Amino acid sequence: MSRVLVTGATGFVGPHAVTALRRRGHEVLAVGSRDADLLDPGGASRLIHRHRPEVLLHLAWYAEPGAYWTSVENVRWVEASLRLLRAFASVGGRRAVLAGTSAEYDWSGEAALREGVTPLRPSTLYGVAKDALRRVAESFCAQEGLSFSWGRVFFLYGPGEDPRRLVSSVARALTRGEEARTSRGHQIRDFLHVADVGAAFAALVDTEVTGAVNVASGEAHRISEVVSLIGRAAGREELLRVGALPDRPDDPPRIVADIARLRDEAGWRPSWPLDEGIADTVAWWTSR
Amino acid sequence: MSRVLVTGATGFVGPHAVTALRRRGHEVLAVGSRDADLLDPGGASRLIHRHRPEVLLHLAWYAEPGAYWTSVENVRWVEASLRLLRAFASVGGRRAVLAGTSAEYDWSGEAALREGVTPLRPSTLYGVAKDALRRVAESFCAQEGLSFSWGRVFFLYGPGEDPRRLVSSVARALTRGEEARTSRGHQIRDFLHVADVGAAFAALVDTEVTGAVNVASGEAHRISEVVSLIGRAAGREELLRVGALPDRPDDPPRIVADIARLRDEAGWRPSWPLDEGIADTVAWWTSR
Repeated sequence: MSRVLVTGATGFVGPHAVTALRRRGHEVLAVGSRDADLLDPGGASRLIHRHRPEVLLHLAWYAEPGAYWTSVENVRWVEASLRLLRAFASVGGRRAVLAGTSAEYDWSGEAALREGVTPLRPSTLYGVAKDALRRVAESFCAQEGLSFSWGRVFFLYGPGEDPRRLVSSVARALTRGEEARTSRGHQIRDFLHVADVGAAFAALVDTEVTGAVNVASGEAHRISEVVSLIGRAAGREELLRVGALPDRPDDPPRIVADIARLRDEAGWRPSWPLDEGIADTVAWWTSR
Repeated sequence: MSRVLVTGATGFVGPHAVTALRRRGHEVLAVGSRDADLLDPGGASRLIHRHRPEVLLHLAWYAEPGAYWTSVENVRWVEASLRLLRAFASVGGRRAVLAGTSAEYDWSGEAALREGVTPLRPSTLYGVAKDALRRVAESFCAQEGLSFSWGRVFFLYGPGEDPRRLVSSVARALTRGEEARTSRGHQIRDFLHVADVGAAFAALVDTEVTGAVNVASGEAHRISEVVSLIGRAAGREELLRVGALPDRPDDPPRIVADIARLRDEAGWRPSWPLDEGIADTVAWWTSR
């Protein structure tokens, strides 16, 4: 049992990580944006010194759909995250687990993306900022004797997701009886249910695995297949308008994780098959 | 003529950059650590909003000899530098030139280190922090439409250098009539006189060269040769004790810059040959 401070605890992933950590027997300090402003220079320090956590699970970041790829907020979150990590080290913190992104990888290849093998070549300020944070955080933790892990999150979905994102936007439209317009959706992606994303981070807290670990399903699904599953779960396939929106010419054809580290080293497996997870998401929108 | 804000203006390189910029006709706002505390969260913002510079030359960093390789201060300077850059962008800054380091490169090879060719593989927190700052700063400036350049400084020496560093420690000992104990000094390095380092940064301010640019001489000299030059300039070769200190087994054999970008794209060449620069340094210590 450890005292674990979770940032971003009121975000999309955070509540699931908090639940999974409590189930694992940890004392969890769940901190959302209303509890502490980590962008305020003194906020992180006060928080850390008040609670003196043994483990830090840092999920908070700027996540406004669309805007987050290019926003200056990414730079502010690099600063805030380093400040938080310094404060955590200063009170004798033992292990830090931070959220990274698949967008750190070179997305131009076709092979499964693998930690330490696939080149890191982020093409957005968001990806660059996360990648740079990981570099400094990993070196700093090694220097200070902290255990460090970095969960690279791929594509996620689930109840409560912002309705501007793909799965939510389609599920919301169909459950309201509205048409859902999408591109042809030939791209292949790796989707993980948000409860599994949270559970995977809780598993990372409980191992001594260090460095980058992909947080993903390892399964390859076409976007069009995901959209079909939503149509079927909602029983409204006739409202799907696949191909009504143009394809984005620069969209990488295939982004799928190699999950050997998560499975074999952290000993964790997803619990939600895609079809059940999609049904869960549609049920949530139906109940709104 | 531009309004140029120079940070680190009272450090080792800073005064030379300020002199060179003024000679080039710029209006220079020279900011040292006593003028503004850039590590204070509000310090950078106040400074930038007061002066509204068109160009930022950011040389300030933690530089305590020995300690700077591993200090947590490197992390604080990443934060401070990003904060400064954000403030600079927010007032409509046009061009940012920042100081990087040869320690960002993989030092294990034998070839001349070249921007965009030699892999980046910093092995110290100092090198990692500078490398990560460059990644975020470059991406952020591209996003915001600022011109950005990053001068990777190699080995430097000159009057006023901290006496704990190689050239100064030998020059200081000999000019006091004391023995100077060094390792065998078989390593090959690329040394540039500090006035040339400052002048090179001033030249970078005046070009539109973007990205990383090595700030170095391009010349390869053994450490033992540099030590001999100091002995000769001081007329006290008999006080040299080369080989009295053990070699460091992990010391890279050869760190020399390819300076094609600095020479051909920025149009700048060093003005101090090594022997004259060493004589200048010894003269400075003699006059102390």
